[in-house]
Amino acid sequence: MKLNGHPTTSVRVHKDGKGIAILDQTLLPFEVKWIPLSSWEDCADAIRQMKVRGAPLIGIVAAYGYALATRVAYNEAEVRRFRTELGEARPTAINLRWALDRLARVTRDQAGEEAFQLAWTEAKALAKEDIEVNESIGRHGLEIIKRLSAEKNGARVNILTHCNAGWFATMDYGTATAPIYMAAREGIKVHVFVDETRPRNQGAITAFELMQEGIPCTVITDNAGGLLMQQNMVDAVIVGTDRVTANGDVCNKIGTYLKALAAFDNNVPFYVALPTSTIDLNTERGSDVPIEERDIREVTHIRGYTIRGLEEVRVFEGDPHVVNPGFDITPGRLVTHLITERGLARSTAEGVRRVKLSEKY
Amino acid sequence: MKLNGHPTTSVRVHKDGKGIAILDQTLLPFEVKWIPLSSWEDCADAIRQMKVRGAPLIGIVAAYGYALATRVAYNEAEVRRFRTELGEARPTAINLRWALDRLARVTRDQAGEEAFQLAWTEAKALAKEDIEVNESIGRHGLEIIKRLSAEKNGARVNILTHCNAGWFATMDYGTATAPIYMAAREGIKVHVFVDETRPRNQGAITAFELMQEGIPCTVITDNAGGLLMQQNMVDAVIVGTDRVTANGDVCNKIGTYLKALAAFDNNVPFYVALPTSTIDLNTERGSDVPIEERDIREVTHIRGYTIRGLEEVRVFEGDPHVVNPGFDITPGRLVTHLITERGLARSTAEGVRRVKLSEKY
Repeated sequence: MKLNGHPTTSVRVHKDGKGIAILDQTLLPFEVKWIPLSSWEDCADAIRQMKVRGAPLIGIVAAYGYALATRVAYNEAEVRRFRTELGEARPTAINLRWALDRLARVTRDQAGEEAFQLAWTEAKALAKEDIEVNESIGRHGLEIIKRLSAEKNGARVNILTHCNAGWFATMDYGTATAPIYMAAREGIKVHVFVDETRPRNQGAITAFELMQEGIPCTVITDNAGGLLMQQNMVDAVIVGTDRVTANGDVCNKIGTYLKALAAFDNNVPFYVALPTSTIDLNTERGSDVPIEERDIREVTHIRGYTIRGLEEVRVFEGDPHVVNPGFDITPGRLVTHLITERGLARSTAEGVRRVKLSEKY
Repeated sequence: MKLNGHPTTSVRVHKDGKGIAILDQTLLPFEVKWIPLSSWEDCADAIRQMKVRGAPLIGIVAAYGYALATRVAYNEAEVRRFRTELGEARPTAINLRWALDRLARVTRDQAGEEAFQLAWTEAKALAKEDIEVNESIGRHGLEIIKRLSAEKNGARVNILTHCNAGWFATMDYGTATAPIYMAAREGIKVHVFVDETRPRNQGAITAFELMQEGIPCTVITDNAGGLLMQQNMVDAVIVGTDRVTANGDVCNKIGTYLKALAAFDNNVPFYVALPTSTIDLNTERGSDVPIEERDIREVTHIRGYTIRGLEEVRVFEGDPHVVNPGFDITPGRLVTHLITERGLARSTAEGVRRVKLSEKY
């Protein structure tokens, strides 16, 4: 998608395999800064520090990290350490493990430069697939927006989204945003309510990327979505996800569950856009997913502009006790449909199993 | 309750009727600063700028403002302007109008010093009643917490609250917090999850006042409450309200509805603590209540400490479109009980009518 008017993707790759470059998402939307990652340690740090974020993008950067690990010293112990460290850094996102497993399968029984070439090629394939997958999610989601637009006789379709499941969270297009971008390209009037998404305010990133594409959007506090649905201001909710479990439960950014409840209570359709790689048939239900506890500083401090530039402020007096869970579980019963690259799926045990194991794609 | 170790109330009154002093709540919890209000214009500004906030406290300051208006020039037109301005400044809170109506009844057909004396006495009575009412709410709510404690064999009772319906929002005790303060005094183990309550972060005020009283609390983002309920970490929700309509709908700080939905979905009892003056039998249902649209700067800017002191930061890049509704509607069906000074009431048309018109108190 467009960044300052120029089409780009979220990861740039050195042709010679020396590394990759990512947008530092801890600086977005305030600053657009590419940072080079030239070792698996760089990749691990970037994931841990949320310089890259978003389930699909984490998977891709982890894959490149894996490849870089094979280059410097293909050493089983080293690679295991990389996988363990990453798994612990972001325990909720399943794409991370999915990507690493895929790389491990490709490089099995190989070593040295040969392993690196296989791994690097596979990481690039994975990044390319991500784009195709999101395009496909976009096409399936577009049909939903088209129908909503027709039902409203072409009046503006209002979509609410939480967090950033946009192109910054993937290679391109995003998951939740892909249908929106496609709809805008088709000339359908679409407008997005963007939850600010405390504590990290990823809504600011979503608003930034939508504005870059010229798509009308309105930022709201996380508290406001329920009222807007009560007032018939929201035609559909579309969010991304970090993991869908075997029973159809959706693990996503903290606060998603509250919006799903409000959507259900107000008959607003609630969609979850995801690549099927995000489906984890090995985890039975949402309550089995480890919920990442993040730094409480994310809650107590906020970054923004003062007259001097970017600074961080502490928003609480004294030193209150704080907890900061990163994700919650939206039960499958609250989800209208999953939007995958293979089409719509029910968020039931049968639905997710069928779409995950489908041969169609 | 205690402020820096000393018992105080939220409004201090000059003995000679020259005015009152309030805590500037726009500075709380960062700074404890008493500001004098010596005219009705001062009172109106304080309410409009949210230097006083909380439905009961707004009513009390409005009453003193009314009295001050009668002193300087008892002039029907002037008083009408005061009432209109205030009504428009905070259209959602019903206590404001309730208090002004009460003062108007008392001073009817009077003028000058005589009117002032009647009005001033009535405002003081209203402030005193608020304390008694909250004590009574506390006693009734205490029974609920006692029962929860017994059910847990004395283990810590975890209460979630949204916004600040604490003593800073009233003369003393608060509404939602009154049962908590009473429980703590009785030696019941109680802990409070405090929603930060974007956009104005009144949760920081709640945490501040709980810490002043030595009551354990944990600050969370507004997004986190649903997960905590899913994880059985919350035994009850208690919130305040700005208006309860004739059908039992509860209008309260934006985001309350989302917590009520989560409580209902997880079988967590959801209580609303209020003086019966907050019940508005003249408004049929929640959707009839005007929802205050507040300054978008509350969303785009946040105040906190930098190393130089208190400053405001702008948390969005560019200039995104923002809407900032202040309240939402929790349908009566999601409320376990209303906790009033007259006891528990059902949040149904019959329940609110009965408690509002009850002779008991």
